[in-house]
Amino acid sequence: MRRVAIVGTGLIGGSIGAGLRALEPAVEVVGYDEDASAARRARALGAVGDVAPTAARAVETADVVVLAVPLDRMPDAVAAIQGAARATAVITDVGSAKGGIVPQGEAAFGGRFVGGHPMAGSERNGIEASDGALFRDAAWVLTPTDATDPDAYRAAAQLATSLGSHVVALGADVHDSLVARLSHLPQLLASCLVEVAAGTGDRDALLTLAGGGFRDVTRIAASHPDIWMGILRGNRDEVLEAIDRLRSSLETAAGRIREGRWDELRAWMTSSRAARLELFTRPDHSEDPVALALLIPDRPGVLAEVTTEAGRIGANIEDLRIAHSTEGGRGRLELVITGSDAAASLADALEALGYHVLRPDINFAT
Amino acid sequence: MRRVAIVGTGLIGGSIGAGLRALEPAVEVVGYDEDASAARRARALGAVGDVAPTAARAVETADVVVLAVPLDRMPDAVAAIQGAARATAVITDVGSAKGGIVPQGEAAFGGRFVGGHPMAGSERNGIEASDGALFRDAAWVLTPTDATDPDAYRAAAQLATSLGSHVVALGADVHDSLVARLSHLPQLLASCLVEVAAGTGDRDALLTLAGGGFRDVTRIAASHPDIWMGILRGNRDEVLEAIDRLRSSLETAAGRIREGRWDELRAWMTSSRAARLELFTRPDHSEDPVALALLIPDRPGVLAEVTTEAGRIGANIEDLRIAHSTEGGRGRLELVITGSDAAASLADALEALGYHVLRPDINFAT
Repeated sequence: MRRVAIVGTGLIGGSIGAGLRALEPAVEVVGYDEDASAARRARALGAVGDVAPTAARAVETADVVVLAVPLDRMPDAVAAIQGAARATAVITDVGSAKGGIVPQGEAAFGGRFVGGHPMAGSERNGIEASDGALFRDAAWVLTPTDATDPDAYRAAAQLATSLGSHVVALGADVHDSLVARLSHLPQLLASCLVEVAAGTGDRDALLTLAGGGFRDVTRIAASHPDIWMGILRGNRDEVLEAIDRLRSSLETAAGRIREGRWDELRAWMTSSRAARLELFTRPDHSEDPVALALLIPDRPGVLAEVTTEAGRIGANIEDLRIAHSTEGGRGRLELVITGSDAAASLADALEALGYHVLRPDINFAT
Repeated sequence: MRRVAIVGTGLIGGSIGAGLRALEPAVEVVGYDEDASAARRARALGAVGDVAPTAARAVETADVVVLAVPLDRMPDAVAAIQGAARATAVITDVGSAKGGIVPQGEAAFGGRFVGGHPMAGSERNGIEASDGALFRDAAWVLTPTDATDPDAYRAAAQLATSLGSHVVALGADVHDSLVARLSHLPQLLASCLVEVAAGTGDRDALLTLAGGGFRDVTRIAASHPDIWMGILRGNRDEVLEAIDRLRSSLETAAGRIREGRWDELRAWMTSSRAARLELFTRPDHSEDPVALALLIPDRPGVLAEVTTEAGRIGANIEDLRIAHSTEGGRGRLELVITGSDAAASLADALEALGYHVLRPDINFAT
């Protein structure tokens, strides 16, 4: 990997360029963007070392080509570089759905095309939000096929690991099905839930009664629709399949409620609970997470006092959340501590500092 | 309010008793529970001053009676005290659905019955988890009707405010519809989402790709089913109605995706986004929330350093969340700061301390 071409210098392309230039200074990075001002800005920010006037010129001497254009522009990007890339060049992409681009890429480049999807991003689009550390500690999915050249796969994996990501190899269809269920479906459901809640029309009552659970479940509904249109369009079949599965699951639950089959409903909720707990149990923590909550005044300094005390007695804060009173002024700080002994020590120490500690809600411990 | 009887000394009843005895020392609190050992434990913990051998004996000299038994035991509790309560006593309850108990209570006690639902609780049931501060800063819904005696309403409201809650008056039907949409439906959907995701069968891939969004959306699926059976049973019609509305909303979204009506889909997501942003905009904060993220090592002391720095420069942390790397060892600390100037100052200060600050994800700012 001596020369990398990035086609599309937006958030992801720009962050790849910035990361490579910081971490692999021997690699030359050349960029191209349909929007010439975005490419110039990428160079000004140091995300690329050089700007090419066309996609074909960008890739002509590259060892590795990264296609980082929006999903619906991928076919054009493939066509634009097909005759220009070197016969030995490895081509990869960063599209968030793989079912379309992988066969297109293989049709154009054979085994030298390796589909990819770095699982990091941001609401903010564009080169201004780019950051070379964006992929650090993130998963980077690669979707090799039987036709993939092993050297091409290694080159794509090296790109990901050099940016601090860990590589996960999945079939393109498995990837698309997983992101549909883990990301695209929850996104749509959050919008649906907000619509259903807002439909009550009583905003004051909604505001008063909407608790932390509703806030958690609908947080992603505040995402910008712009980034979602391309994603949903690019993964349409898998998204529709995930919706069907959700509908069928909800239908079954509704039937149990309607017909009073409570034992079945309880068994189903119990099994979902077990699956959820298993899914987010961190393998490196053998001790149970324990939740505490504190009533706190809403002022700077409280968090510092609480977390300093946790540090002092060696309690590891696995997670925390501020649940504001909807009236403002006061709030509740929820902490998840590793291990019940540490949690009890911290509760005692905080009470000695004058805090009122509640011990509720295993909910939050997950 | 001189003598309060609490029928059902579990988490809620015990917490009401403990709060009253701490905050209103002149009030006598007598308790009864079907489970005599729970009542004895409530007295040992100081949650009630006295234990009665029967519900009728508990209420016979009370000014205010609180029915704090599980929803499906409410009819029995009403029957047990109907002949025994004084003609002037005010009767209220804490059931999480009001459509059943309010007419039952009025049939038995006329205008002296006032339905109630304190919006605070815990996963943990039983007297051991009780806490007199449980209701502090929480909403306490009362559901008066045209038949409600104004003095009875004032007495029920006084009970709530003396425990630190703020009273919200709603129709029983409005309450039930709101909690179905804001709490019961999200709970069921979280279980459905876990079922659909777990159905892919590839646990390692699931673990790697499930991000903070999925974690947020499904957190409540880890609730104990035990508390949910009574709630769903008690609010069955409204829950089924909420499911129908959700299904219709999801159906519409699916149709737009299936038929490629992307402009309609975008308009719908935009309108849900606006509703979500409006719903959780705190009226006391005129400045925009700004999100920052830091890459942090997973060790005690980091949170204290970051929050101390925020306190030092006067940046108000509105919210924060730890997003652990699924591999363990490292994580991402997401902060929401009030105002862009304060956020920029904090980012600079943290970078001076050696942290790498990302500025992503307006998502979390809500």
